[in-house]
Amino acid sequence: FEPTVLVHGGAGDIADSGIPLKKLGVKRAARRGYEALIKSGSVLDAVEGAVNSLEEDVNFNAGNGSVLTWDGDVEMDASIMNGATLEAGCVSLARDIINPISLARRIMETTRHRYIAGEGAMNIAMESENFKILQKGALVTEAAQKSLENYKASLNRTRSKRESQIYGSPGTVGAVAIDACGNVAAATSTGGITGKLSGRIGDSPILGGGTYADNETAAVSATGHGETIMRYNVVSRMLALVQHANHTAQEAAERVLNEMTQRFDETAGIIAIDHRGRLGIHFTSKRMSWAYQRGEELHFGVDAGEDQLEIVGEPRVPPL
Amino acid sequence: FEPTVLVHGGAGDIADSGIPLKKLGVKRAARRGYEALIKSGSVLDAVEGAVNSLEEDVNFNAGNGSVLTWDGDVEMDASIMNGATLEAGCVSLARDIINPISLARRIMETTRHRYIAGEGAMNIAMESENFKILQKGALVTEAAQKSLENYKASLNRTRSKRESQIYGSPGTVGAVAIDACGNVAAATSTGGITGKLSGRIGDSPILGGGTYADNETAAVSATGHGETIMRYNVVSRMLALVQHANHTAQEAAERVLNEMTQRFDETAGIIAIDHRGRLGIHFTSKRMSWAYQRGEELHFGVDAGEDQLEIVGEPRVPPL
Repeated sequence: FEPTVLVHGGAGDIADSGIPLKKLGVKRAARRGYEALIKSGSVLDAVEGAVNSLEEDVNFNAGNGSVLTWDGDVEMDASIMNGATLEAGCVSLARDIINPISLARRIMETTRHRYIAGEGAMNIAMESENFKILQKGALVTEAAQKSLENYKASLNRTRSKRESQIYGSPGTVGAVAIDACGNVAAATSTGGITGKLSGRIGDSPILGGGTYADNETAAVSATGHGETIMRYNVVSRMLALVQHANHTAQEAAERVLNEMTQRFDETAGIIAIDHRGRLGIHFTSKRMSWAYQRGEELHFGVDAGEDQLEIVGEPRVPPL
Repeated sequence: FEPTVLVHGGAGDIADSGIPLKKLGVKRAARRGYEALIKSGSVLDAVEGAVNSLEEDVNFNAGNGSVLTWDGDVEMDASIMNGATLEAGCVSLARDIINPISLARRIMETTRHRYIAGEGAMNIAMESENFKILQKGALVTEAAQKSLENYKASLNRTRSKRESQIYGSPGTVGAVAIDACGNVAAATSTGGITGKLSGRIGDSPILGGGTYADNETAAVSATGHGETIMRYNVVSRMLALVQHANHTAQEAAERVLNEMTQRFDETAGIIAIDHRGRLGIHFTSKRMSWAYQRGEELHFGVDAGEDQLEIVGEPRVPPL
């Protein structure tokens, strides 16, 4: 297998003016994840590092830059999964930390639970030196406030458009990675959906909903209308096609997302790496930002069919 | 299809002395669910009614009788799903109400979200006249307090036994139902696991983890070691076998649970009704209480291979 790190920066109606910063962000994240993979050899480090990069970037809806609840707060979901062991960590209603994906990993590695939400999750963060607990409101950006205002104003107008169009603010982030031995991992992190009720949980922390990794099938991270991805069990349906119907990651992603959008009129996107190392990148939304690094090649795109290529230096393997 | 309501009262090490009350409880729940199905014609009413019966029964770990967190509180998870529409409602960290499954249904029917946790969920309950908000501690039973004491004491002794044996207190509850037209629904409700950290979420509210319903495959409710069920994505794996490998509900339940227990050394149980109306009942734990009503027949059991039969009156269909 060729070591690869593939990231997405969210599916949705990305404005033309937002494209350059989205591309910059996913390229940077793919490179950070790939560097972690080469240096530590760990697919978990790769997906965590890639997602950390996007969480720290205000141009994506995760960590800093997360969209806001109806009350104007940030409440974040994240999950991470190891395809070799099926170990996983999930977190919901995380607040005041930049890197919820690292908290999900800490839940996986230090507790006997797989999923912790709210105050209980914040207790885990506070017990660790790895997490800086920010002041309330520190993660709130002007752009997120503006989106919330626009959303509230839209409620007084027509409700004819589909939810995911009205709410906008695409930018859930995710990463999948594979190492030379075929070990895979997946990670997803999000601020959710603009104007959500406090306490709302989306698909990102749901294993089989928005995230899963299994060396025997694939590593997958989804993005899009969380309620629909969750109820349609998108990632699990995809894995079933890989396992039982001999689909590639790409074929399975296309089939499940197209079926979902046809049935429910909501859109989503997927990135995946299957058990044979094949990549899957598909979205039924207008756009999705994505990038992957494999060796010296850095591929990226935002529009359907787009696949740009840059040649970058491979990170150096540290001396033994 | 023959209308059927199948319930479980949890998989685990049920003590001999506990068997009579477990059997009484699951039989009563199956009858209440079946009566709701015949009277209203709704599989959602059926699974909600059956689960309500078990939530109100202190002999099960859901609603009244829920096990306690490390801090001695009750924090409940539940989910409900409609197999015809794939509509679903999920709730976590519910407190001070007897019927979390009804709150899950209310989230499904009155919000634009599918999953709400904690204070946000309690806000939904408080806005409705259907939910009586009890005083803090009202759901805490002496038996649950004793289980927590036993769990804490066990931490000072050996840690060699598997988690699900140490924690004991089986009793997550669930129901699946099918109507004459082949519509299915599923519901699961739980207090979780004794001594859990505050904020811990198990498999019960996870669509594809512990609960799912799809007319095209099956309705399923799982019980057992939640962390393992969640990471193994038990219900989704089962549905994949029904959809792609032509398994019956029983064959799929046996295969997935046996594989899970073999790989992770944790146990679980499943009830299911597949798209052809066939029932699946399987557990890898020592025992699981279950019952179903179909016409005048009321079947029930607790031990492996047990299938007792009582003939009961069919509820009368209300006059038009």
